[in-house]
Amino acid sequence: MTVVYKSDPVRGREWAAILAEHAPDLPFHMWPETGDPAAVRYLVAWQPPADIGTLFPNLEVMFSVAAGVDQLDLSAVPAHLPVVRMVDPNLIASMAEYVVMGVLMLHRDLLDYLQFQRDGRWQEIRVTTAARRRVGIMGLGSLGTAAIERLRPFGFPLAGWSRSPKAIAGVECFAGEEGFHAFLARTDILVCLVPLTPETRGILNAETFARLPAGAGLVQVGRGGHLVDADLVAALDSDHLRGAIVDVVSTEPAPPGHPFWNHPKIVLTPHVASMTQPQTAAHVFLDNVRRHQRGEPLLGTVDRGRGY
Amino acid sequence: MTVVYKSDPVRGREWAAILAEHAPDLPFHMWPETGDPAAVRYLVAWQPPADIGTLFPNLEVMFSVAAGVDQLDLSAVPAHLPVVRMVDPNLIASMAEYVVMGVLMLHRDLLDYLQFQRDGRWQEIRVTTAARRRVGIMGLGSLGTAAIERLRPFGFPLAGWSRSPKAIAGVECFAGEEGFHAFLARTDILVCLVPLTPETRGILNAETFARLPAGAGLVQVGRGGHLVDADLVAALDSDHLRGAIVDVVSTEPAPPGHPFWNHPKIVLTPHVASMTQPQTAAHVFLDNVRRHQRGEPLLGTVDRGRGY
Repeated sequence: MTVVYKSDPVRGREWAAILAEHAPDLPFHMWPETGDPAAVRYLVAWQPPADIGTLFPNLEVMFSVAAGVDQLDLSAVPAHLPVVRMVDPNLIASMAEYVVMGVLMLHRDLLDYLQFQRDGRWQEIRVTTAARRRVGIMGLGSLGTAAIERLRPFGFPLAGWSRSPKAIAGVECFAGEEGFHAFLARTDILVCLVPLTPETRGILNAETFARLPAGAGLVQVGRGGHLVDADLVAALDSDHLRGAIVDVVSTEPAPPGHPFWNHPKIVLTPHVASMTQPQTAAHVFLDNVRRHQRGEPLLGTVDRGRGY
Repeated sequence: MTVVYKSDPVRGREWAAILAEHAPDLPFHMWPETGDPAAVRYLVAWQPPADIGTLFPNLEVMFSVAAGVDQLDLSAVPAHLPVVRMVDPNLIASMAEYVVMGVLMLHRDLLDYLQFQRDGRWQEIRVTTAARRRVGIMGLGSLGTAAIERLRPFGFPLAGWSRSPKAIAGVECFAGEEGFHAFLARTDILVCLVPLTPETRGILNAETFARLPAGAGLVQVGRGGHLVDADLVAALDSDHLRGAIVDVVSTEPAPPGHPFWNHPKIVLTPHVASMTQPQTAAHVFLDNVRRHQRGEPLLGTVDRGRGY
């Protein structure tokens, strides 16, 4: 009954130490080392090996090290195997921090002030009250709802958009394709937190931006595949959008010469909005393994039909 | 029974419109126009005229347009006149927004990431959890306590420092000169929100910075006079401090060539953390005038002995 870890080795060594201390009954191997393949019950990976089904014939659960599983080719994972996302409270908290930071930076015109500072210009922009700045969250899962709870005390009119209808007190909820346009039309600061699926790939495009009110801003903390990079640049350059805080791009690291690096209306960060922390992630994993051993439901099991 | 307004004329015209609509019984004059000086009962000003006592012999209250009164020479205001600060809930809310934005930017290493973006460098810094980032607020008046309430949900260990001892649930409170060093020693992100008085002038100096832990950050939203500019630059250049968000400087506008304009570890904004909004400030003023007319206590009366 062993665990194989296949992801960043620096973090892997921290996982190894934590499991050695707290779960000596679970031998831990770091890919490409696996021990006896027939003994492997749990795989923790960013991407599984191609031949996972034959390689580990007795595998019982496939754990993603990330909150999302869009990096996984789910069709390559045998249908009987549960696939589990990382539901790490620290990961959720750090995402909520980043979202609030991004929303406040756009709300308080910080991208303009950064430009004024570069220009040596002391010029004030009159403050807009939060009550007049409408924030809209795409995605009402654990990340989206945590962001909403952190934004709530500021008094922004809040809306959410999700695949299937949801109800959240004090939040105007929109759903599905039929609700998307109305959601965009009332949103001054758009936060993208939806899972990446075939339906949401490229959803942040020219038409979406055109439906936002003039002067709107974007906090892009979904996946690079949500965003059509050139459409964002065009919307900013035409002054329809005011600014964007972007944490993910389609190719990471963003290559030299990518237009986001030098765009004065974009703050670009290197996919750090929420990071899996070995200290807590290993414990979240271990808790799920113990649930599995006791025959209890796992937390964060992926619905393969929905893709998240 | 007239009102004289002596401050920014653009905002003054908004005040005039609001008072014309909601207080037609209170004729409104914009300095230097005053109408009959003997009829002036209320003065609203950033700085009063030098000879206020003789100019307006029947003046009853002197209102500051700002949350602070450090810009006023209180000794030039006749001793019998109440001096009232602007206690505007929107002003408090906008300060709290800015403080949370500044704290999150420092907490989430945004100044480093802005530098990485300028350098075209895709490099992550591991996230520190909020539970390990100690925030300390200097000043526990209406602005400081509002900032604390907005910071609380993030889980930062919070401390406050004030002139006289205070008790706030969940906040480690320090007071006076004797508590200052211990407050600094436990503070990773320092927020300056104290009033400017002879005791706090220059309080953000080399010794203060040296007592903060290595890698600490500063959110300076007090007054320019609190900060010794050169000491901040030195503390940042020596890498003892990690970054600073600065909204106020000793000379405003900051002159060309001021070291804050181009410092890579400073985000400088032009005194916009909280701005008096004519829409709400005029109503706050009017509410206080009505209190005065009914013989009730005024909100925001300054204690001249303390200086705030």
